[in-house]
Amino acid sequence: MSERYVLISTDSHAGPPAEQYRDYIESRYRPAFDEAQTEAEAMRQLAETDDTRRFLDEWDKEIGEHGGMRGAWDPVVRDKEMDHDGVAAEVVFPDADSAGVGGVAKTPFTAGLGSTGDDDPELTLAGAWAHNRWLVDFCANSPERRAGVALVPMHDVSAAVRLIEWSAEHDLRGGIMIPTKWGRLPSYNDPVYDPVWAAAAATGLPLHTHSGVGPDPDDYGYTPGLIAIYTTEAYWWAARPLWALILGGVFERHPSLKYVIAENGAWWTPDIISRMDSKWEGDHATRKFGPAAFRSGLTMRPSEYFDRNCWMAASVMGDVEVERRHLIGVGNLLWGSDYPHPEGTWPHTRTWLAERFRDVPQEDVRRILGLTAAGVYGFDLDSLAPHVARIGPTVTDIHGT
Amino acid sequence: MSERYVLISTDSHAGPPAEQYRDYIESRYRPAFDEAQTEAEAMRQLAETDDTRRFLDEWDKEIGEHGGMRGAWDPVVRDKEMDHDGVAAEVVFPDADSAGVGGVAKTPFTAGLGSTGDDDPELTLAGAWAHNRWLVDFCANSPERRAGVALVPMHDVSAAVRLIEWSAEHDLRGGIMIPTKWGRLPSYNDPVYDPVWAAAAATGLPLHTHSGVGPDPDDYGYTPGLIAIYTTEAYWWAARPLWALILGGVFERHPSLKYVIAENGAWWTPDIISRMDSKWEGDHATRKFGPAAFRSGLTMRPSEYFDRNCWMAASVMGDVEVERRHLIGVGNLLWGSDYPHPEGTWPHTRTWLAERFRDVPQEDVRRILGLTAAGVYGFDLDSLAPHVARIGPTVTDIHGT
Repeated sequence: MSERYVLISTDSHAGPPAEQYRDYIESRYRPAFDEAQTEAEAMRQLAETDDTRRFLDEWDKEIGEHGGMRGAWDPVVRDKEMDHDGVAAEVVFPDADSAGVGGVAKTPFTAGLGSTGDDDPELTLAGAWAHNRWLVDFCANSPERRAGVALVPMHDVSAAVRLIEWSAEHDLRGGIMIPTKWGRLPSYNDPVYDPVWAAAAATGLPLHTHSGVGPDPDDYGYTPGLIAIYTTEAYWWAARPLWALILGGVFERHPSLKYVIAENGAWWTPDIISRMDSKWEGDHATRKFGPAAFRSGLTMRPSEYFDRNCWMAASVMGDVEVERRHLIGVGNLLWGSDYPHPEGTWPHTRTWLAERFRDVPQEDVRRILGLTAAGVYGFDLDSLAPHVARIGPTVTDIHGT
Repeated sequence: MSERYVLISTDSHAGPPAEQYRDYIESRYRPAFDEAQTEAEAMRQLAETDDTRRFLDEWDKEIGEHGGMRGAWDPVVRDKEMDHDGVAAEVVFPDADSAGVGGVAKTPFTAGLGSTGDDDPELTLAGAWAHNRWLVDFCANSPERRAGVALVPMHDVSAAVRLIEWSAEHDLRGGIMIPTKWGRLPSYNDPVYDPVWAAAAATGLPLHTHSGVGPDPDDYGYTPGLIAIYTTEAYWWAARPLWALILGGVFERHPSLKYVIAENGAWWTPDIISRMDSKWEGDHATRKFGPAAFRSGLTMRPSEYFDRNCWMAASVMGDVEVERRHLIGVGNLLWGSDYPHPEGTWPHTRTWLAERFRDVPQEDVRRILGLTAAGVYGFDLDSLAPHVARIGPTVTDIHGT
């Protein structure tokens, strides 16, 4: 047993085809759902290029013998693919298709990765409920291996609190995901959200934001380099809630709140956090604002809140995250496969792990690949042990002989 | 002579009291100017806190024997202070007061550091012309030591081109500064601006953006931690034009265009640029978009455009910029005193230089402190030689014996 790693993916995605989602939508929203699906499919086709079609053909071939995208909603296929990749357990986000594969629906009414505070409040909430109900059923298979993340729109604080309590009652141990962009809603440093943070802290459910949204359409229009620009600055949009929460004193007021940023790397945190610290300490560049501007409501350094309350689910992390793990915090860094996205490690996770972690001390690898996640999400290691014994990557697999 | 460093500050600020600016404003805009000044003064008083008043009292004492803020508009006092600090020449931006000192006016109609594409087109242009005319007169004293940066609003491309040509005719060798935030105007990767880039390239005037603007007021409202949040994410707002220009193919179409980001550090460029390169090369994470999304209009790697076309006037750079100078590019890094801002090195530049550069090889220090800037801005080293001989920091001053 000690020879195998407990591999927990803190970033995976699941969602069914539209006809399955439809059953989970409240009946009065079904016409709007059908219309949105038709529109989404038309948009998908419009966005296709020769390049993307070529990529999808290759991808289809690559995953053909792995059930294709079926594992996105079929727990039996999914478990088989987790076994194939050596993954004992997973934290499940929405929106299984990130490439326009077809067949897998987006979360109803963009309540998933693309959600922002600017979306329609009523429809977004309806979409979130539909996904969350589907997710409870989906996680009921192999519950010891799956921690589902409930979607929590933020338009209505009371509705958000109800959703959190419902998620806790239905054992969605993955926690909750709020929109990365608050849009026209109050920013996340606004005390108006304190009941949401309090509910997450009280239930022990980790709070998440996940990368995905980028600049507003008005910011760049349809101009040259748009996708390259989007992928460059998407890091920043997904990082923004971090300083809103830390500097807004949210972790001061809710010391047990756990916050996880998913799929946004972690290479950027040491530089940003050390700058926050420097201002808190009263550096030359910001002395003109006076100490209250940086210390009000914060009894600790920003880095101390980060260490205590924040984790980076850096997914398919790069060499840079591994190299900077001590600056980021070895205990704040979580691995994820991003299954079944083509930007993830599936179906080659075992090879990928060996490439990335071969020369990293085992103690660090154990924490990054699974032990820290087990603590954050409350996975029961005893229940996972039989899976690990059966399919977990061995020390030799990763570090060689 | 070889024993002294040519010290060129690529980030300094100048601007007169309101009554002097008034003379440079077209008469039809003077009532609006007077009204804006009254409002600005009222806002300044409203924003004051015990902390900021305490800081200003200390700052007033500190600069008392150095002419106070008078060097912001009085070239005789200014030259004396440049001598005091060992600065041979300077690149002059607007908005000499960044702390609410009083007495020095902001650039008329926020045409200066706070300018965005959302500002009133007519008034902003009037403010820019007023400042630019004032700046020509100001730089006429000690012209060999001063390169003024003209303000160029971007609402009207033809007006911008006229301003650039006028700036070249009036020897504002500092180049031009465009608003850091394009706001509701097209983003800077939009080919609509090609005549502006072409005019800057043809005249040889370096293009600038300067840090200062932050999130939109709606983004955070007046919520806890606002100033700390602003100072954390201001880096990013000031970095945004970099990828718009590089990834929009602006340096491909205008290979001789020089672009300088002022007062925004440079610690962040290696990480960002290496990620752009990785996508251009077709990495795993972005393969689903296909190569055209990253290579269209770019025959070189993003890092190659950066090396050739971009400079970071990192002003009062930190140890981190000095440590990362080879990653940033020693030849892409420029020093600045930020005179007369309290976040700058004045009136302690000589001490500060010794602290920051003591252990750095002289060859690198020479480039960062002045030689690269001389090339970018076309300072005449022969004309500067007598000043350097008189007041330049010596090798012993900086590196000890």
